[in-house]
Amino acid sequence: MIRRNVQLPPEHIYPIDDWRIVERRFSMRYLEHNETIFAIGNGYLGMRGNLEDGRPIAQSGTYINGFYESWPITYAEEAYGFAKTGQTMLNVTDGKIIRLYVDDEPLFLPTATLLSYERALDMAAGTLDRELVWEMPSGKLVKVASRRLASFRHRHLAAISYQVTVMNADAPVVVSSELITPENNQSKRLGDPRAATGLSHSVFEPKLSFARDRRIGLGYVTANSRMSLAVSAEHVLETASTWRVMSESDDYTAKTVFSVDAEAGQPITLIKYLSYHKSRTEQAPELSARSDRTLNRAADAGFDHLIDSQRTYMDEFWRRSDVVLRDGDPRVQQCVRFNLFHILQAAGRAEGSGIPAKGLTGPAYDGHYFWDIEIYILPFLIYTSPRIARNLLKFRYGQLDAARARARQVNQKGALFPWRTINGEEASAYFAAGTAQYHINADVVYALKKYVEVTGDEDFLFEFGAEILVETARFWADLGAYPNGNDSSFHIHGVTGPDEYTAIVNDNAYTNLMARSNLRYATEIVDRLAREDEHRFAALVHATGLTREEIEEWRGAADRMHVPYDEALGVHPQDSSFLDKPAWDFENTPSDHYPLFMFYHPLVIYRHRVIKQSDVVLAMFLLGEEFSLQSKRRNFDYYSPLTTWDSSLSVSIQSIAAWELDYRDMANEFFRYTALMDLADVGGNVKDGVHVASLGGTWMAVVYGLAGMRDYGGALSFDPRSADDTVVKFPLIVRGQEMEVAIEGPTVTYLLRRGSGLTIRHRDEAIELAEGEPVARPTSLIDESQGERDAASKEA
Amino acid sequence: MIRRNVQLPPEHIYPIDDWRIVERRFSMRYLEHNETIFAIGNGYLGMRGNLEDGRPIAQSGTYINGFYESWPITYAEEAYGFAKTGQTMLNVTDGKIIRLYVDDEPLFLPTATLLSYERALDMAAGTLDRELVWEMPSGKLVKVASRRLASFRHRHLAAISYQVTVMNADAPVVVSSELITPENNQSKRLGDPRAATGLSHSVFEPKLSFARDRRIGLGYVTANSRMSLAVSAEHVLETASTWRVMSESDDYTAKTVFSVDAEAGQPITLIKYLSYHKSRTEQAPELSARSDRTLNRAADAGFDHLIDSQRTYMDEFWRRSDVVLRDGDPRVQQCVRFNLFHILQAAGRAEGSGIPAKGLTGPAYDGHYFWDIEIYILPFLIYTSPRIARNLLKFRYGQLDAARARARQVNQKGALFPWRTINGEEASAYFAAGTAQYHINADVVYALKKYVEVTGDEDFLFEFGAEILVETARFWADLGAYPNGNDSSFHIHGVTGPDEYTAIVNDNAYTNLMARSNLRYATEIVDRLAREDEHRFAALVHATGLTREEIEEWRGAADRMHVPYDEALGVHPQDSSFLDKPAWDFENTPSDHYPLFMFYHPLVIYRHRVIKQSDVVLAMFLLGEEFSLQSKRRNFDYYSPLTTWDSSLSVSIQSIAAWELDYRDMANEFFRYTALMDLADVGGNVKDGVHVASLGGTWMAVVYGLAGMRDYGGALSFDPRSADDTVVKFPLIVRGQEMEVAIEGPTVTYLLRRGSGLTIRHRDEAIELAEGEPVARPTSLIDESQGERDAASKEA
Repeated sequence: MIRRNVQLPPEHIYPIDDWRIVERRFSMRYLEHNETIFAIGNGYLGMRGNLEDGRPIAQSGTYINGFYESWPITYAEEAYGFAKTGQTMLNVTDGKIIRLYVDDEPLFLPTATLLSYERALDMAAGTLDRELVWEMPSGKLVKVASRRLASFRHRHLAAISYQVTVMNADAPVVVSSELITPENNQSKRLGDPRAATGLSHSVFEPKLSFARDRRIGLGYVTANSRMSLAVSAEHVLETASTWRVMSESDDYTAKTVFSVDAEAGQPITLIKYLSYHKSRTEQAPELSARSDRTLNRAADAGFDHLIDSQRTYMDEFWRRSDVVLRDGDPRVQQCVRFNLFHILQAAGRAEGSGIPAKGLTGPAYDGHYFWDIEIYILPFLIYTSPRIARNLLKFRYGQLDAARARARQVNQKGALFPWRTINGEEASAYFAAGTAQYHINADVVYALKKYVEVTGDEDFLFEFGAEILVETARFWADLGAYPNGNDSSFHIHGVTGPDEYTAIVNDNAYTNLMARSNLRYATEIVDRLAREDEHRFAALVHATGLTREEIEEWRGAADRMHVPYDEALGVHPQDSSFLDKPAWDFENTPSDHYPLFMFYHPLVIYRHRVIKQSDVVLAMFLLGEEFSLQSKRRNFDYYSPLTTWDSSLSVSIQSIAAWELDYRDMANEFFRYTALMDLADVGGNVKDGVHVASLGGTWMAVVYGLAGMRDYGGALSFDPRSADDTVVKFPLIVRGQEMEVAIEGPTVTYLLRRGSGLTIRHRDEAIELAEGEPVARPTSLIDESQGERDAASKEA
Repeated sequence: MIRRNVQLPPEHIYPIDDWRIVERRFSMRYLEHNETIFAIGNGYLGMRGNLEDGRPIAQSGTYINGFYESWPITYAEEAYGFAKTGQTMLNVTDGKIIRLYVDDEPLFLPTATLLSYERALDMAAGTLDRELVWEMPSGKLVKVASRRLASFRHRHLAAISYQVTVMNADAPVVVSSELITPENNQSKRLGDPRAATGLSHSVFEPKLSFARDRRIGLGYVTANSRMSLAVSAEHVLETASTWRVMSESDDYTAKTVFSVDAEAGQPITLIKYLSYHKSRTEQAPELSARSDRTLNRAADAGFDHLIDSQRTYMDEFWRRSDVVLRDGDPRVQQCVRFNLFHILQAAGRAEGSGIPAKGLTGPAYDGHYFWDIEIYILPFLIYTSPRIARNLLKFRYGQLDAARARARQVNQKGALFPWRTINGEEASAYFAAGTAQYHINADVVYALKKYVEVTGDEDFLFEFGAEILVETARFWADLGAYPNGNDSSFHIHGVTGPDEYTAIVNDNAYTNLMARSNLRYATEIVDRLAREDEHRFAALVHATGLTREEIEEWRGAADRMHVPYDEALGVHPQDSSFLDKPAWDFENTPSDHYPLFMFYHPLVIYRHRVIKQSDVVLAMFLLGEEFSLQSKRRNFDYYSPLTTWDSSLSVSIQSIAAWELDYRDMANEFFRYTALMDLADVGGNVKDGVHVASLGGTWMAVVYGLAGMRDYGGALSFDPRSADDTVVKFPLIVRGQEMEVAIEGPTVTYLLRRGSGLTIRHRDEAIELAEGEPVARPTSLIDESQGERDAASKEA
């Protein structure tokens, strides 16, 4: 089915293990790949899975969410309103490095003789662990065991415990713990538009450097964006052997070096506490003082305490979020946990920042925030970590002023959120697939609406959301038009939908549908405010200059929104000219010419009826209540053969849609691609970071797909699919109450774990859930073969 | 009528003079403007009208056609097939500078007391002359008279005579003649996409520098493009006073300084001969040797000889090309001559190069070659200087291999000429308004066809043209498609037409019509070759891999080409979605917001029904035989109110179309804008160079507009319009014969000046012209008021 560029179904290389991702053997081949997979982070601070040994390193990566350098975008041909400020998430001071020398020989894995080796990402503990035994040419056996974490309790804090034991002899052991600042942030682009932009200037201006006893620290300000950073490390060494310590630092590096006269069998344990503080307003010395306090507190409490608090945080997370999934292949369970874990690592303590498209695991897409947050990640967080969801929506609200300014820059009223950004300014240098994706506005509102409906957090809605609603609705009303006197429909011209293989079209169905939803929700909420809360309504009018006439304008635009529909085909064309285009010649496209955008000029792709991901299928999911099942089937059958799946964002949605239409084989196959996107490196670029949209898509594919959950207007319903051996369990938090859905073979059980009572639907039946009283119902087991045959015949 | 951004009809500031453009008073306000207006050039070498005095200079400019630096285009977001190599015509060594010091005081016009001043571009002589009398604070009167030319006889040669006379006293006079190489080519862009790209690297690598007696010279190679240049100057001084000379040079400059003990009233005359040689393959020393020979020959013959040969060349040019035009305002005659003169200055000795969009008068558009050559300039040259026309077509042929490579880069068969280039590689960094203007292919073929039809030069057609025809036809057949089984029309998707306020559309009417013409001509010529010249046909097959099947494919595509037509409006929509767009809100567009592209994001402009220049009106002119007069009127009436005239390319075509429809006031008004484009600085940017398309458009507006000439398929016909006081005369060379058209009030007279006999049409009447036998006929004097009223009412 996903026949474009992949011949075989995806498989990953890791041993089966429900809670861990394990590397059993060190291999250069997977070095860069595993730097991403074994990355740890807490949403504030991210560290790629680089070896402590300092070498070999494919791509060193240490990121602070929202810590970026800006640069002027230069265009060989410029035009009015083009985005001006490039932004690149910075690879900051590397604190992971702990070099080991035994008998003055360095540990270097590619050439070392390893009697044993294991590296494991422990998703229950929230740590990255490594253990190895190194046989030196001299016959000395050296055991090294390390554990690394980015603390969820203390977002500025990371820590590494590093234990060395020379097992069978005495030996001089040197452990050199370092801080290394990359002097520039040059990464190569190599023609892949998804890669990061290389910065050619010197980014970090040194402001502070110290080495005091076992504490070292560095501080910087960035050259253009003028953001300050302080990073410090504290060291605690425990060993029965005698040792000496020396610390030193210069502008870009600092190190604390322990020289130990190691006695045979006596472990040497180094704990390295790392603190990162950043600020846009405070200077390096103040941030360094903050780092000192962070380190003092951490060292006082000790590493075990950190491990315990991490475990407690993880337990709580999994209690709220874990998806148990058994459907034959045990790898899938592992993948699902990995994906949810990496969402947490990207979002957990983001607090004031967004979620980069690669989390904090790699430099691709320059660390920019896209719609992935709202459409792919927030559904999971809304239902499992509503506080984190709220933080992310608050982050968007924080960029509303920049969005207002951007709307002015592109000659529109209201606000236009940037297609890609870190600091709120549009950072896309290719407007046809950037600025033109105006749908971002409606995507933000879609997530806001879902958040409010699921959590019931109307305070947030009225305090922050309403302003977003007014400015986005105002934008749509201004962007669209009633182009002809004799056509009373509202049209939106010159936009790009989510499918980036089509650009700058008129009446993109996705955009029009989502804009309508945006306009309607804005109208509804503003109406309610005017009716129910005079004071807040007045404040909103004050903040936005809202007028009654505008609200009527929005109502009119929503009511008269044009939605393209082709009677003959019975499908919603992706846009007004989509059906007129010549078909892509899949027959004569070599299988190594995918993704197409790496092999064909945009004009060639735009010219043809070929899509990267289906806009209409996505709209059918997000706004499913606006489509009949029959219409969904026709659209799905029409678009699937035209889709290349060149986007990692497409497969989860395709799986959900296939579940709804009972195309089960297809649903399962697409789900595999979604779930294994990173672990099996489906896109061949996991080395540059995980695909966060796909992480969130995995949860959606289980919950909205297999379990058939729908929540239009906040009304929760389920229509689970299952085979005889299916086991799926997941919790949900709905308006503060905690429920659980458990599918086991032909039965689904709904349980309100905690709460005062919740109404849900199982297909057409309303069920009142009471705390602690499970309700069981049969799942859907209808004949699926007909649907599959239908689809197959249409594609043939 | 041209109401968008101009309140008053254009006027220029120069005194009326049929053959000269005169500056009567030095003014800083017009310094930069006049550097363009008073530029001299011969198509190979161009020099802006910078003062000899060295200061003040707004934009120094010395250009060698085709001498450029290349640079890698960097994109903040790149995609497959984007143009990679930027090219910038270089501002090379300035040889114009002759500094004057009297009593060690420099001549500096802004503060000098000038008793008299005149600078004149003499279009009959082909020289730039200046004469002034400077009253020094000491009371000394200094007369300075200079004359400058870029020789049409010797393309590498320029010369300046510079005469100084201290009229009323003895005084030490120093004349310092210099060569100054700009160390970098940094020009500011300031957000105007029409401006030049600044080069930030050091472009010129010094290779040679000498100062021998009164000869000085410099030589360079460019850093990236590896082109070599040698420039040398020879000096001859004549005076009765005593003098000394000293020459010196370093890497970037050289000078010869004459120190004269000037006696009162004794003129000092310096002749400076300048030679520029460039090469892609030869090195600076060889080029310097060539310069030496050029200078030796020039100095031997003397300056007067140069002046004489320039005059002879100009006489011959004007005999072939002059347009006599009296229609009330004598300025128009002056403008027309200025425009034709500047075409000659841009094209005369280009030989192997094209014509930059600003000629050799300024840096704008980076000195790139566009379709302006084929659509705007070649008609004039074909009818007046067929050899120059042939050279320009030969130049395109010379870039056919690069065009083949470019087609591969954008995944197409055949050849795709670059939208903008110097060296043949696509240099447009904004593909939506660059590469997507595929119509360039058909424009080249259009000019080729006209050249062959008018000159009868079938040797050129078969030797060079046929290969262009095959590769362009092949391109169109591959680009377009029969998108639907039930639609047997040939469609072309995803292109941009000449109107740059609309981009990446389907079935652009201009493109489809021109592509059809291209396909038909290719089919016709290839058929003929196959029939008539087996040998040449075999050679063509060998060169292009042409197959019989392809020819049928072209025939089919041409026959079934879709041409958008709207029954309800009775107009040809510019493209398939043009009519669906909302109208531009002209009412609320401030008059200082034109040109729109300087004030609105491209998406805003693309989204609306607003055009920069009308594609359809242009097609109606180029392919007029394919439209009925009624259809032309409907199209014209429909598009005119939607046009901003933001393009300097639009007004000439609009004038021609208006003449055909007998909208005479409008035709005259647009003609004024065309003719005065540069002298009246209609666009406000003449400081950056003349608008060559508008220069050629002026000739077309007279010949095709007022005189109603048509030449479809090579059949020449006339339907002149005139008022009682109209006087228009112009010569034409048709298949080697020379004819003249003279309109005087209500009468037009056709005369075959030289030739064996020519058949023309006067409206419906065929006339056989015999040498020396004038034929007189009445012009069209139909009532024009109805048409104007029609148009006015439609626009209201």
